Amino acid sequence: MLPEIAKLGHIALITPDLKKSLWFFSEVLGLEETEVVDGTHYLRAWGDFEHHTLSLKQGEKSKVDHIGWRTKRPEDVGKYAELLTEAGADVKWIESGEEAGQGRAIRFTLPSEHPFEIYYEMEKTQPDQDRKSVLKNQTYKSWRKGASPRRIDHVNLATSQNPAVIHKWLIDNLGFKMREFVDLGDGNILAGWLSVTPLVHDIAVISEPDAATPNRLHHLAYWFDNAQDILRAADILSEEGIKFVGPGKHGVSQAVYLYVKDPGSGHRVELFSNSYLIFEPDWEPIRWTPEDLQVGMTYWGQDAVLDNQDSTEA
Amino acid sequence: MLPEIAKLGHIALITPDLKKSLWFFSEVLGLEETEVVDGTHYLRAWGDFEHHTLSLKQGEKSKVDHIGWRTKRPEDVGKYAELLTEAGADVKWIESGEEAGQGRAIRFTLPSEHPFEIYYEMEKTQPDQDRKSVLKNQTYKSWRKGASPRRIDHVNLATSQNPAVIHKWLIDNLGFKMREFVDLGDGNILAGWLSVTPLVHDIAVISEPDAATPNRLHHLAYWFDNAQDILRAADILSEEGIKFVGPGKHGVSQAVYLYVKDPGSGHRVELFSNSYLIFEPDWEPIRWTPEDLQVGMTYWGQDAVLDNQDSTEA
Amino acid sequence: MLPEIAKLGHIALITPDLKKSLWFFSEVLGLEETEVVDGTHYLRAWGDFEHHTLSLKQGEKSKVDHIGWRTKRPEDVGKYAELLTEAGADVKWIESGEEAGQGRAIRFTLPSEHPFEIYYEMEKTQPDQDRKSVLKNQTYKSWRKGASPRRIDHVNLATSQNPAVIHKWLIDNLGFKMREFVDLGDGNILAGWLSVTPLVHDIAVISEPDAATPNRLHHLAYWFDNAQDILRAADILSEEGIKFVGPGKHGVSQAVYLYVKDPGSGHRVELFSNSYLIFEPDWEPIRWTPEDLQVGMTYWGQDAVLDNQDSTEA
Amino acid sequence: MLPEIAKLGHIALITPDLKKSLWFFSEVLGLEETEVVDGTHYLRAWGDFEHHTLSLKQGEKSKVDHIGWRTKRPEDVGKYAELLTEAGADVKWIESGEEAGQGRAIRFTLPSEHPFEIYYEMEKTQPDQDRKSVLKNQTYKSWRKGASPRRIDHVNLATSQNPAVIHKWLIDNLGFKMREFVDLGDGNILAGWLSVTPLVHDIAVISEPDAATPNRLHHLAYWFDNAQDILRAADILSEEGIKFVGPGKHGVSQAVYLYVKDPGSGHRVELFSNSYLIFEPDWEPIRWTPEDLQVGMTYWGQDAVLDNQDSTEA
Repeated sequence: MLPEIAKLGHIALITPDLKKSLWFFSEVLGLEETEVVDGTHYLRAWGDFEHHTLSLKQGEKSKVDHIGWRTKRPEDVGKYAELLTEAGADVKWIESGEEAGQGRAIRFTLPSEHPFEIYYEMEKTQPDQDRKSVLKNQTYKSWRKGASPRRIDHVNLATSQNPAVIHKWLIDNLGFKMREFVDLGDGNILAGWLSVTPLVHDIAVISEPDAATPNRLHHLAYWFDNAQDILRAADILSEEGIKFVGPGKHGVSQAVYLYVKDPGSGHRVELFSNSYLIFEPDWEPIRWTPEDLQVGMTYWGQDAVLDNQDSTEA
Repeated sequence: MLPEIAKLGHIALITPDLKKSLWFFSEVLGLEETEVVDGTHYLRAWGDFEHHTLSLKQGEKSKVDHIGWRTKRPEDVGKYAELLTEAGADVKWIESGEEAGQGRAIRFTLPSEHPFEIYYEMEKTQPDQDRKSVLKNQTYKSWRKGASPRRIDHVNLATSQNPAVIHKWLIDNLGFKMREFVDLGDGNILAGWLSVTPLVHDIAVISEPDAATPNRLHHLAYWFDNAQDILRAADILSEEGIKFVGPGKHGVSQAVYLYVKDPGSGHRVELFSNSYLIFEPDWEPIRWTPEDLQVGMTYWGQDAVLDNQDSTEA
Repeated sequence: MLPEIAKLGHIALITPDLKKSLWFFSEVLGLEETEVVDGTHYLRAWGDFEHHTLSLKQGEKSKVDHIGWRTKRPEDVGKYAELLTEAGADVKWIESGEEAGQGRAIRFTLPSEHPFEIYYEMEKTQPDQDRKSVLKNQTYKSWRKGASPRRIDHVNLATSQNPAVIHKWLIDNLGFKMREFVDLGDGNILAGWLSVTPLVHDIAVISEPDAATPNRLHHLAYWFDNAQDILRAADILSEEGIKFVGPGKHGVSQAVYLYVKDPGSGHRVELFSNSYLIFEPDWEPIRWTPEDLQVGMTYWGQDAVLDNQDSTEA
Repeated sequence: MLPEIAKLGHIALITPDLKKSLWFFSEVLGLEETEVVDGTHYLRAWGDFEHHTLSLKQGEKSKVDHIGWRTKRPEDVGKYAELLTEAGADVKWIESGEEAGQGRAIRFTLPSEHPFEIYYEMEKTQPDQDRKSVLKNQTYKSWRKGASPRRIDHVNLATSQNPAVIHKWLIDNLGFKMREFVDLGDGNILAGWLSVTPLVHDIAVISEPDAATPNRLHHLAYWFDNAQDILRAADILSEEGIKFVGPGKHGVSQAVYLYVKDPGSGHRVELFSNSYLIFEPDWEPIRWTPEDLQVGMTYWGQDAVLDNQDSTEA
């Protein structure tokens, strides 16, 4: 049986200004801190079930340390180690506990040099009593501070390479399915949105021809239950004097969005709501062309142009 | 006792494409038609209490026929006739019934040539049984079609004249109070928001130096109970292929907005929610300066630049 | 010229458990503390413009110390002192500063013994820099903690006396207008909603025949911009283990509501949104009868029965 | 390879008052009609991708004709036919086209006699041009009429049999996973929520000891993007004079809900929003006990008691 990815697990970020990044992610966005181990802060949203969905560590410059994906079965990690090695990837093992809360895992990079991690075991550390939800199916009390998203949603990568090559690699090696894509009609694909879950995308890979490195982070995204929660987040960010793009609604994915950069690291975060789910087993990838790209990018609201100049290094 | 304005009553619009304007205001925005008299269509929102808050009539070009204001007392109409004549206005009487549902009224123009009407008597025509609300304090069933605003909110005028002169005229002659204004600091006022009610503005007058005529309509506005209703309206307009600006939130007035033009006439309509009420008897007009104008105009969202090039004639 | 009430100003509450009441109003509801003077805590919502809209003081038992109303003009306080004395009220003067932030004021009781205060002068103390809004027309940053209402809205009194007598007293002596009322059809009025502003009610007075005292507080209310904010408040209260009634929508006033009691004092607070404004100068009070009382009380949602057994003493 | 269920497909309902049921589902809820074939009306929501998610047919009494489930692969239908026959079910084949839009399918009943259908092939009939969305990933224009849900969500069955037996049957034979359940602690399970997708439930089965038949429909559910959309639906239903339960929020599934019965058939529909998704491969079913059942059933709002007296026959 082939190994399978169950879900996006977490993003590990390096920031040159840890204090400011912690303020942004904890106080402004409102993530909760599970624990701090060896200078790495492990965070998650009130509805996330794993030990962490984001980690922050001080570093010389802004960078993605790795993007973690959880498998469906314990044995899938080893199977991926073999298959990816066969496929030419340089697979390294990470021992249990090397990343807090996590079991044995592998790390490798995509052909675009984006650093990935695959793991299965992860603690479900419980919150302290005073922050714990009264609901048995919810981790933390909601709405305790800041914008207060429910859970991690997806990651969006930019690359100076041909994104279609990366899409194919993700499909062939990790079992992703293409859900929507932009076909420039000249043989070039501008972007693709892919998932292993019914979410429209767990990952997107878009073209950024002039990027300084091939491995860029366009953004990571957290999910909110209601579009109104995005408007509330807009109030909160405005009061903190933090600039952002949006609100708007993409045609692609039908997401109500707002894009904001962590002032500590420059890493971009999408606050994300609405969108739709794909349960159809015979889903035909939605093909957007230059003719309908405008409504595809911005159904309404402030344009979230695919402005990749300011992506961060992954 | 001096006469007093109680509220903005209605806007009478001329449109070169009545059919398209009716589609826009009735089907897309979702106003209800009270009746049609001599080719004039009288409309109102589900929560409006008067016979009409908007009228549409076919004409050669887009124009505002008049902006109607209701007085606090029946005798105020005659008193205003006297006072305004003394103040130099050319006051004309409109007989009862000349405008459907309305009693005797006066018409005159501001120094900027904007056409105003003042009336007191107005029918409270009841809707047909199948459209009537089950609530005794609500006129029509809500949410029957289109965006479905609750009520008329305000009117925003543009002028090539000095807007400060018009503000003063409204304050001196009609009893408006200045609530917020933009002071360019060079002796010029860019815009002022004034009201006779606790609304931040029943009327605004802004500068449009290069306008073809001194009497321009920047927009009229309808009010929604929730910011989320504005997002829903954005979906509806997008599905009809109608362009608009927003959603966004002004600093001035704290309004969540969306600006859209009637495709039949070009008259601009603001879909408007949230904002705040002024009950303070000693309100100090909020003074915005070039330094804080950006947050004043756009607290967040798609800029609704004071782009007056495309105002319509009033 | 007769004196006039401009607005509801504040409610001064006595609580037997100040610590718990402060936790409820500050942390759970999210009011801000302007200052503490002689053991009295002065609070207001992020959008309130006055020094305080609520005060809390430790006392032997739960009680309303007074309900403060602001006049339209400075001289109105003295005029009311005369008129109310003529009308038989026992008017007492409160010196400037006796209540923090406030000028000279009068206190007296309604025929139902509800304690009222009338004042004009009130400081507009500015918040500390870190809590101050970036908006010039807003006091505090919104959404800093808890449910986070915008402003005080109204007060609802219960009485064992005939409420119609109190309605008439408010109309005759303080200039209130009846907006909606419940006529039991047997010569008895169950409740009336009255206002001096375009709000449907600044005050309501309802019958509670079996009350232990004639002067009861049914509830005080704070206003939210969106119905969704009420649902968010429901999440917050549920996570704190605080019981409440709602959400629901009244027919009367069209308010989306939620009723919750301060666990420190038992004083009931309504979290309130939507509703409508009355700008009509010839408003006919809406008369609800036993036949349509059900939709009048609960248009939808959890019944907020006029359950007065648990009102607090005013 | 074992066959797999991809998703809940549709519910086929029999109604004794087709006209009224059509009014309810089309005009009040706002579903769209794909086509009418041999007296059966095929409906779907604006965001549903299949030919239909609901069908309505006139019959002597209210009944569920069948509940349709789509497989992951074409060959899964035949595989299920074999496996279910082996498991003792009486499997009948339905020929292609016998149900409009649908390929060859099988029908059988659960041990509780609930009628199920399994199919793979289903047309993706396109809407007429004037109702078609401008978005390539959305079927119909949203918000065209009534409450306007996005898509079908789940079905909830009641039975006089031991629900634990049916849960086990669904897990063993159709691959469902238990997500949350109520354990009465006396050896009895009150209810279970199960899914094959990341939704908390595609199906629930609850105990109704005194039911007239073992195969009852508790409700079917349609999904809305925002909790505010549920409040808007409450307005719409209230204006139509249709009673309902809610709004409220379940602890189980964290769903914001409203329950309403089709006045034509009595079949109950849940209007459903928020909730959460389960991506964890090692999800431990959430076990609710009598001690925490109150918050499990009603986190807040009007109680949606598990009142099964009024279920309809399935």
